[in-house]
Amino acid sequence: MTAMSKLVSVKQTAEILNKNDKYLILTHSHPDGDTLGSGFGLCSALRSLGKKANVICSDEIPEKFRYLTVEGNEEFEVETVISVDVADQKLLGSLKEKYAESVLLSIDHHATNTGFAENLYLEGDSAAATECVYNVIKELGVKITPFIATCLYTGLATDTGCFKFSNTTPRTHIYAAELMAAGADYNEINRVMFEVKSQARIEMERQVLNGIEYICDGRCAIVTVTQEMIRETGCDSSDMDGIAAMSRTIEGVSIGVTVREKSDGRWKVSLRTFEPYDASAIASDFGGGGHIRAAGCEFGCSLEEVKTQLKAKITEVLEG
Amino acid sequence: MTAMSKLVSVKQTAEILNKNDKYLILTHSHPDGDTLGSGFGLCSALRSLGKKANVICSDEIPEKFRYLTVEGNEEFEVETVISVDVADQKLLGSLKEKYAESVLLSIDHHATNTGFAENLYLEGDSAAATECVYNVIKELGVKITPFIATCLYTGLATDTGCFKFSNTTPRTHIYAAELMAAGADYNEINRVMFEVKSQARIEMERQVLNGIEYICDGRCAIVTVTQEMIRETGCDSSDMDGIAAMSRTIEGVSIGVTVREKSDGRWKVSLRTFEPYDASAIASDFGGGGHIRAAGCEFGCSLEEVKTQLKAKITEVLEG
Repeated sequence: MTAMSKLVSVKQTAEILNKNDKYLILTHSHPDGDTLGSGFGLCSALRSLGKKANVICSDEIPEKFRYLTVEGNEEFEVETVISVDVADQKLLGSLKEKYAESVLLSIDHHATNTGFAENLYLEGDSAAATECVYNVIKELGVKITPFIATCLYTGLATDTGCFKFSNTTPRTHIYAAELMAAGADYNEINRVMFEVKSQARIEMERQVLNGIEYICDGRCAIVTVTQEMIRETGCDSSDMDGIAAMSRTIEGVSIGVTVREKSDGRWKVSLRTFEPYDASAIASDFGGGGHIRAAGCEFGCSLEEVKTQLKAKITEVLEG
Repeated sequence: MTAMSKLVSVKQTAEILNKNDKYLILTHSHPDGDTLGSGFGLCSALRSLGKKANVICSDEIPEKFRYLTVEGNEEFEVETVISVDVADQKLLGSLKEKYAESVLLSIDHHATNTGFAENLYLEGDSAAATECVYNVIKELGVKITPFIATCLYTGLATDTGCFKFSNTTPRTHIYAAELMAAGADYNEINRVMFEVKSQARIEMERQVLNGIEYICDGRCAIVTVTQEMIRETGCDSSDMDGIAAMSRTIEGVSIGVTVREKSDGRWKVSLRTFEPYDASAIASDFGGGGHIRAAGCEFGCSLEEVKTQLKAKITEVLEG
């Protein structure tokens, strides 16, 4: 788990940050609200201590997170590399080759952190990395400005589906309360993250709903997403959030299936089950695998053939 | 506003509740998670003080809220009538005639409470009535059991869209943290309230999305719901939550319109606008009214004619 890293406390983390300067903060590829909120929040806090700091990411920052970047980057020669919300050096994307071996400090909430950094401040029971960053900023004695509060709240809200997912803890709510009181722009964040849908997304939902199939009296729902649908609607990856989960949110569904066409034409199947059904047992029948409630497999044949095979197997499981 | 009621503090509210017995707790018609969570949570607390208490509602309690009713009702002769989350005696539905004149105490969070009860404990800045009830239960010195916590959390979550809406305050989050720590079954509540959709709802969304119309380059979206769609899908009122809001959550939409057929065949039009557009100005052109960002009007003509008139007016507003 943390083979190489030295595990450090929040106090030691603050000491490391106080002692060093000229920070480059690495976020993970395909950036989300938590890695970006952690990065830009910590960056702002370090600057308020008179340090130099910048945030980078291997991928472009999605439009909806641009409000986190308003403080901009500065010109200086990097002395200290740190990472936030990065569980594995592979997740640095194109930044991996240049920086993975020189990360002095990793701040993370993934219990699965591979320990690629020299020092690791890990809070595995935090819903979001911004919970850990908030601990660090408080330890540094930095005033929580409305901007820092906005950054940290973003991570809390986006990693918990707005305090809905099971990773939410009482502490997550207490931190949300503190950050709201400190001036986090929570109304606008919640509106943009959880209410607004692009026209492309709306059209994707329409096509997905038109193609939904139920078998075994609605105990299994099958959702299909083809490359043609992605092209036609113009959806990007952030528009696709939650589409794969649609089949298992339908009342009465015990086995939710999503069949997605990959760019190479193969079909990726995700299976989500409720008690007592074993998703991994179904997936392993088709050479896949996973966990008891979430598993997956791939097919190289036609969509029709994929569905025929899946339906036969699932009918056997539900009615056999 | 509170013409007749005597406004009472949380301390006075607890005194009233300690002094009396044999409670009938009234909830509002078309019951939601807040009125039911308030009612059953307070009922359980009163019983733990050795009092008799029951909860009633003019309408059937929707299936998804049945977990709030597990403690059941008892047989006794009512001495004291109180209401929770009821802003106006009209909202008592069929219970109004029998009880509206004899409500000793109203616990509410609506600043618009009409003051129908003898005493009113009103916290107008609370996101949910369960925030007020929680204050009262703490003042009574009752231990917050997991069941009471589940009731009160239900109100917080459902009235705030899971801490997403602008009525959410730091206190809402602090109370959520306390209730989670007291054993609220928040995972299951959040799953049932915010994740599961009935097949009828899924089919309604499909039909709504198939019928959505954009005008003025997507700056206005029009959603239509007919009685035939309601019949065909089998949706009940709880399945319809949020359907009317769909048009205004689409990116780029400045004017969101929902046209709903009433059971008498007339068309009810809801208008939601973003700055700088005035919904009430549009509605008043058709004999309706409302607020600057939310207004409505009615039509007696054909759906086609309704849309023609609306489109002409909205195009004038957006492009004129």
